[in-house]
Amino acid sequence: MPYILVSTSIRLENGPTNVGDEHSDKDIMEKLGAKLVQHKGNPFKEYTVPDPPRIVLDRLEELGYTVVNACGIGQTIVWTLYKPLPGTTG
Amino acid sequence: MPYILVSTSIRLENGPTNVGDEHSDKDIMEKLGAKLVQHKGNPFKEYTVPDPPRIVLDRLEELGYTVVNACGIGQTIVWTLYKPLPGTTG
Amino acid sequence: MPYILVSTSIRLENGPTNVGDEHSDKDIMEKLGAKLVQHKGNPFKEYTVPDPPRIVLDRLEELGYTVVNACGIGQTIVWTLYKPLPGTTG
Amino acid sequence: MPYILVSTSIRLENGPTNVGDEHSDKDIMEKLGAKLVQHKGNPFKEYTVPDPPRIVLDRLEELGYTVVNACGIGQTIVWTLYKPLPGTTG
Amino acid sequence: MPYILVSTSIRLENGPTNVGDEHSDKDIMEKLGAKLVQHKGNPFKEYTVPDPPRIVLDRLEELGYTVVNACGIGQTIVWTLYKPLPGTTG
Repeated sequence: MPYILVSTSIRLENGPTNVGDEHSDKDIMEKLGAKLVQHKGNPFKEYTVPDPPRIVLDRLEELGYTVVNACGIGQTIVWTLYKPLPGTTG
Repeated sequence: MPYILVSTSIRLENGPTNVGDEHSDKDIMEKLGAKLVQHKGNPFKEYTVPDPPRIVLDRLEELGYTVVNACGIGQTIVWTLYKPLPGTTG
Repeated sequence: MPYILVSTSIRLENGPTNVGDEHSDKDIMEKLGAKLVQHKGNPFKEYTVPDPPRIVLDRLEELGYTVVNACGIGQTIVWTLYKPLPGTTG
Repeated sequence: MPYILVSTSIRLENGPTNVGDEHSDKDIMEKLGAKLVQHKGNPFKEYTVPDPPRIVLDRLEELGYTVVNACGIGQTIVWTLYKPLPGTTG
Repeated sequence: MPYILVSTSIRLENGPTNVGDEHSDKDIMEKLGAKLVQHKGNPFKEYTVPDPPRIVLDRLEELGYTVVNACGIGQTIVWTLYKPLPGTTG
């Protein structure tokens, strides 16, 4: 899983922070302390942690992921993180 | 085709995800499992896959494309991916 | 002209795409097939091509420009492209 | 703390500028001259300085942090800064 | 001053373009041809030039600054430019 998408809404200084979709790597989700939840009315599940996003970025950095981008859509901010797979040149 | 534009709307955790316009490279579109569709009222066709964007980014990484940017416009998020052409220094 | 700004509105899969202002390099604008137009009510002229933005990015890549950023403002997406001038270390 | 999030609202040319959440590194917050405040109605605290963001970015650069991204959400602009931890290859 | 923030509103193809706050480096502001103005109702001053942003980016590139990011907030687009200070490793 070379890419991870991290997102939070409205404010940067508190959680929850979304860290994955239903098919995200279970091992990484567990290391982040993320829980797989399904909000009422949503046809999909998502992984979420109670921490603010800065703490999630720091934790993912320990796992080898670095931020390649952040962007805002509506009241949500989304960070795109990347980790080259072992054995690739990327 | 050094550049690919990947976009999705409203939520990150589910699809569909748009991966190309009518003139996009057919071989790459096929490898992504994309279908060329034309939505009612649109004067153009577009390539789309049912997967969430993270899975598309991971698949494009296997094809040599890396994310150079993501940005939000309205309720849509757009990733710009780049792959240097063989024989170029870029 | 080390920087070029490329922009399009509403949708990614069709044009027109804006590629320059009145003072943009005429030689590059010609290579892109751009026309200098002035829309009614605008106190300025702009260069525009009928193609979707992905095709413009691919064409500019052949001219040595690479995407350093994309961002959304309102319903418009703007790519900032850069080409180091010959003889500079940038 | 490899990542720092810096944000300001409405205008770039004046402060205040937000530089951290409740769990941010106290030593760095002190070097920035930041105060931990809790605004009425907010269930969280935040670190803030009275300076405009450009001055904060310059100060963080002296501490080894560089801007990897800026993005807008609503009327707020958010810079993501990164500093590789000593002993890492990042 | 390793960081400079450049911003413009509504359209890319004409000015004015904002290039600094009250405490920005006077020498650089002068080289850009910027004037320090205070708009009615604003409790702060800002440096502004009449040129479109692309021309400002090209001029700043001659002074050693390169674009690290652009982002949209509301109807405004903001470029973050960076120039490593002499004697630093950044």
